[in-house]
Amino acid sequence: MTAVKKIAVLTSGGDSQGMNAAVRAVVRSALYFGLEVYGIQRGYQGLLNSDIFPMDLRSVGDIIQRGGTVLQSARCKEFMTPEGQQKGAQILRDHGIDGLVVIGGDGSYQGANKLSKLGIKTMGLPGTIDNDISYTDYTIGFDTAVSIVVDAINKLRDTMSSHERSSIVEVMGRHCGDIALHAGLASGAETILVPEVEYSLEEVSERMKQNFAHGKRHSIIIVAEGAGSGDLVAQEVLKSCPSYEPRVTVLGHIQRGGTPTAFDRNLASRLGDFAVRKLIEGESDKACGIIKGELVTTDIDKVVNTKKPFNMELYELALRLSQ
Amino acid sequence: MTAVKKIAVLTSGGDSQGMNAAVRAVVRSALYFGLEVYGIQRGYQGLLNSDIFPMDLRSVGDIIQRGGTVLQSARCKEFMTPEGQQKGAQILRDHGIDGLVVIGGDGSYQGANKLSKLGIKTMGLPGTIDNDISYTDYTIGFDTAVSIVVDAINKLRDTMSSHERSSIVEVMGRHCGDIALHAGLASGAETILVPEVEYSLEEVSERMKQNFAHGKRHSIIIVAEGAGSGDLVAQEVLKSCPSYEPRVTVLGHIQRGGTPTAFDRNLASRLGDFAVRKLIEGESDKACGIIKGELVTTDIDKVVNTKKPFNMELYELALRLSQ
Amino acid sequence: MTAVKKIAVLTSGGDSQGMNAAVRAVVRSALYFGLEVYGIQRGYQGLLNSDIFPMDLRSVGDIIQRGGTVLQSARCKEFMTPEGQQKGAQILRDHGIDGLVVIGGDGSYQGANKLSKLGIKTMGLPGTIDNDISYTDYTIGFDTAVSIVVDAINKLRDTMSSHERSSIVEVMGRHCGDIALHAGLASGAETILVPEVEYSLEEVSERMKQNFAHGKRHSIIIVAEGAGSGDLVAQEVLKSCPSYEPRVTVLGHIQRGGTPTAFDRNLASRLGDFAVRKLIEGESDKACGIIKGELVTTDIDKVVNTKKPFNMELYELALRLSQ
Amino acid sequence: MTAVKKIAVLTSGGDSQGMNAAVRAVVRSALYFGLEVYGIQRGYQGLLNSDIFPMDLRSVGDIIQRGGTVLQSARCKEFMTPEGQQKGAQILRDHGIDGLVVIGGDGSYQGANKLSKLGIKTMGLPGTIDNDISYTDYTIGFDTAVSIVVDAINKLRDTMSSHERSSIVEVMGRHCGDIALHAGLASGAETILVPEVEYSLEEVSERMKQNFAHGKRHSIIIVAEGAGSGDLVAQEVLKSCPSYEPRVTVLGHIQRGGTPTAFDRNLASRLGDFAVRKLIEGESDKACGIIKGELVTTDIDKVVNTKKPFNMELYELALRLSQ
Repeated sequence: MTAVKKIAVLTSGGDSQGMNAAVRAVVRSALYFGLEVYGIQRGYQGLLNSDIFPMDLRSVGDIIQRGGTVLQSARCKEFMTPEGQQKGAQILRDHGIDGLVVIGGDGSYQGANKLSKLGIKTMGLPGTIDNDISYTDYTIGFDTAVSIVVDAINKLRDTMSSHERSSIVEVMGRHCGDIALHAGLASGAETILVPEVEYSLEEVSERMKQNFAHGKRHSIIIVAEGAGSGDLVAQEVLKSCPSYEPRVTVLGHIQRGGTPTAFDRNLASRLGDFAVRKLIEGESDKACGIIKGELVTTDIDKVVNTKKPFNMELYELALRLSQ
Repeated sequence: MTAVKKIAVLTSGGDSQGMNAAVRAVVRSALYFGLEVYGIQRGYQGLLNSDIFPMDLRSVGDIIQRGGTVLQSARCKEFMTPEGQQKGAQILRDHGIDGLVVIGGDGSYQGANKLSKLGIKTMGLPGTIDNDISYTDYTIGFDTAVSIVVDAINKLRDTMSSHERSSIVEVMGRHCGDIALHAGLASGAETILVPEVEYSLEEVSERMKQNFAHGKRHSIIIVAEGAGSGDLVAQEVLKSCPSYEPRVTVLGHIQRGGTPTAFDRNLASRLGDFAVRKLIEGESDKACGIIKGELVTTDIDKVVNTKKPFNMELYELALRLSQ
Repeated sequence: MTAVKKIAVLTSGGDSQGMNAAVRAVVRSALYFGLEVYGIQRGYQGLLNSDIFPMDLRSVGDIIQRGGTVLQSARCKEFMTPEGQQKGAQILRDHGIDGLVVIGGDGSYQGANKLSKLGIKTMGLPGTIDNDISYTDYTIGFDTAVSIVVDAINKLRDTMSSHERSSIVEVMGRHCGDIALHAGLASGAETILVPEVEYSLEEVSERMKQNFAHGKRHSIIIVAEGAGSGDLVAQEVLKSCPSYEPRVTVLGHIQRGGTPTAFDRNLASRLGDFAVRKLIEGESDKACGIIKGELVTTDIDKVVNTKKPFNMELYELALRLSQ
Repeated sequence: MTAVKKIAVLTSGGDSQGMNAAVRAVVRSALYFGLEVYGIQRGYQGLLNSDIFPMDLRSVGDIIQRGGTVLQSARCKEFMTPEGQQKGAQILRDHGIDGLVVIGGDGSYQGANKLSKLGIKTMGLPGTIDNDISYTDYTIGFDTAVSIVVDAINKLRDTMSSHERSSIVEVMGRHCGDIALHAGLASGAETILVPEVEYSLEEVSERMKQNFAHGKRHSIIIVAEGAGSGDLVAQEVLKSCPSYEPRVTVLGHIQRGGTPTAFDRNLASRLGDFAVRKLIEGESDKACGIIKGELVTTDIDKVVNTKKPFNMELYELALRLSQ
């Protein structure tokens, strides 16, 4: 006896690499365990438009390596209202769908939370590059985004060494500095500016001066967008070290694209399968995550209302190693 | 008071991506904590040749992104004898070196074990692409090797779809199927042959037949070298499905090269720093690893004498999702 | 007045990167100039099966970046007979198709030649990674294949430097050494073995010895498959320099895959458009190519019966620069 | 008898990928032909500082694959004065250097021109990503820069498809739209804005509207920096199509970095060798280039005073194929 018989899957919010691998895992696990499975196109907007279609094994063939999401994504104001949510639940019921897997970020989770209160069993999967969801160590897409940043900095390094300049790289992360932190550690950035840690631009400039004095041929500053803009940082640095001519690179949406890393594909595959199994076991209104290597579920309410703690230990390590 | 004052670092055995990031972390952490630090060129052979030189902050500048190892590696039969080991310990003592970080695999660990019994404090770091070291979830280089395999399979996929053929990919892993397992899950391989799981080539052929019958346009078989050769698998498949014309690709040493992934650089950075701190705290004869996200030390004896368990759950997931 | 009104396009022989870009260019140029355009699935086999379908602007959307060929490819013995060729011409006539663009290698060109004699206007586009077609400086896919080889050698370099070993890399090219030549020049290979130039393995070994004596830390030998097998070269080298432990890498079919380079996409786009314009102008039984930067047509007979000359100047340059 | 006996090589202006391959070719060809060869660090500034050192075969080992320039580059106001130029020529004479290869762009060429008038035989090599040097079809670094842009657009494509948005990509090129043109053709951009072709933003917006109306799921606009800023284009598009939410990506200095493509390495190798041979033959005050596949020299005066013509045919092809 399974707690659900027909489930649907949608992607919502900003897309992230690995969403397709998660969709594939949801579909194939569901079929493996004898469920029927449907796709919903364009997130909650598609749900309200009844843009719902049956999926089989071949629907998710050859997508594990693709960036973006074949189910597409869109914003939906209507679904933020109680009327919209009731309409959505009704449409699912009309299709005989009793379980829903939502892949996305915070806003997507809140939608799942509402639907669960209206009788649909729901599971949330953390699909966002920002790693800004609590009760999971990693979100789907984060490792790929970090890889893209590190690859871009590799390229900047060549030209920095040739000109002995410094580089300021603005990366994604409005409320969470994890992309900046992990990419900064991996690329040996001297300075990492994140929303979670206060900083003084004067100290940043001072540190740069000292690094050059100690023979560092180039200097990398990574700024999470939530901690400031690359241009502003450059202006400040220029004031106190006019000869450094810092170059600003804003990486933008390329951080969201590209084929997912093996890490993200495997994380997405494990989480997609796990969500299906938890629905079958009767759980609902839960966010799936990975904590210290173990797959776990947590109440969506708790996830949505908890700020993810920042890894100060890693931050200090990054600074210690980039002397 | 620190338990060591002067430490050295060497890389030994087959090289792996991220070894340089580990060397950088050892050197910079050691300097940060007030130690003197030396590099030993070409592993234990270099030790016996007194190929030892002081390292400073700049010695490890601009290497975090490089594959291979700037300290180079070599095999050394002499160091496998008690005389060689005593000579090595004496050379270290002559240099005033009381601590040693060894980055490598099983054989490298055994050398560290011997030296510790001769009065040198030692720490082992898992540097090998094969992920075949116990008491650590990941070795340094493993994530990069998996990425290279997955990237190669992405390329094979294009041409397989065009010709509707199947592909057999032989990857590294003599005693441990982890590269095959993780790359297989990430690339949606239909069949994953590893040394840890018995298999019948007849069943493999049968599964391929069924996949084609169910509309799969191409079929990927990954074979860890320890489980068989790609060519042998191809011959068997050809016998029972003469029309499939499987193509064999042996990925070889490209799996060891290339810039390390962000994951490997960060793992190496954390482990390198950790090894230094543990030496300072007085630990010795230990292997450093990461288990469920936490850095840990384990007695080298225990590590060397324990076979790493195979993740059957992940293996079954890979098969479940590649229907 | 255009000489053709309805044209078709097919890909044949081994696939190569950029074939999709060529198909896209053929379709969109044809539509732009007011023609109707059809796709034929699976090469000449698909033609004989009447696997023919109309294509519009959207049929070729989002394919310019994909490796392989969306039209797929297959071998077809039946089409090598006069009966098969007449059947093919008849099927085209039954569909009202008066022009055909064939993308492929030598065998594909011969098919086009036969069809032109049966009243179908034909154009051949050089789609093969081997660069083994005469009257064109570059074939579609060649630049990408060379890039893949160079990228693989970059990875091998890391590990060679770490171990001070030599590497033997076997690449594609049965009758034409161009992949070996261009990848060898680009990666600084010390030895390049191609079918067009006789060589002695003794001299190869001797050269390697000298290189090591002069301080080269690693040595790369590239072998085109038409010039010998990597394994055989390794055995010879081992005989005279037993300590070098050469490592053999056979790159295989990954050379055919992956997203095409910008160079190949643009070459394919230009040639696809050119072929359509030449059909409209009334030309037939021609192979399109690029010679010294200019797009040209040449009689297929002449192309098929001329061996491509080898660029000895470039070969000597490669050796001169890899001392 | 060679016209020069001791030559030097420097890189100047903005760095570009492939400069190292060119330096390697200059050094190794010079040695091969029996010349002595020197490197000058940091361009003309280094010359004035007598930062000159002898180079041998090993000085350029293992650099062919590196981005940037091992000789570094810097701006130098002093060398723009007659006094500076005389000082530079004198320093070269003092070292017994009678020939100089300068790798860089327009400004670098002008320096070579001045030195040649002061008795030093000079050759210029086109080292710049912008392809803005006349009398050569390609500059060293251009192919790599285009590849980086195309790779970035590949990533943007994923996320654009998921959200059905349009993307505006600003690329390098102040006076020359070639990066925009070649990357635009290769990535199927609907709109390509270059300094050489006037455009109206209204028409651009109109074209976008039509594309969406005809079913294009995403739309790419490439803007060369010399033709306008990505942000300004976005504002205009937003005015007439408020629902498209175009996303702007400014690629910046990552276009200058990364390992050079095989194409750039081979172009650089050929040109470096060619420059040395021309110096030996007694030519001076010339820029080396490649025109229709042939290596050529042209008077520097002529190169510096001629604006490179824009390839309108390719531009029209790009638009024709991106309907």
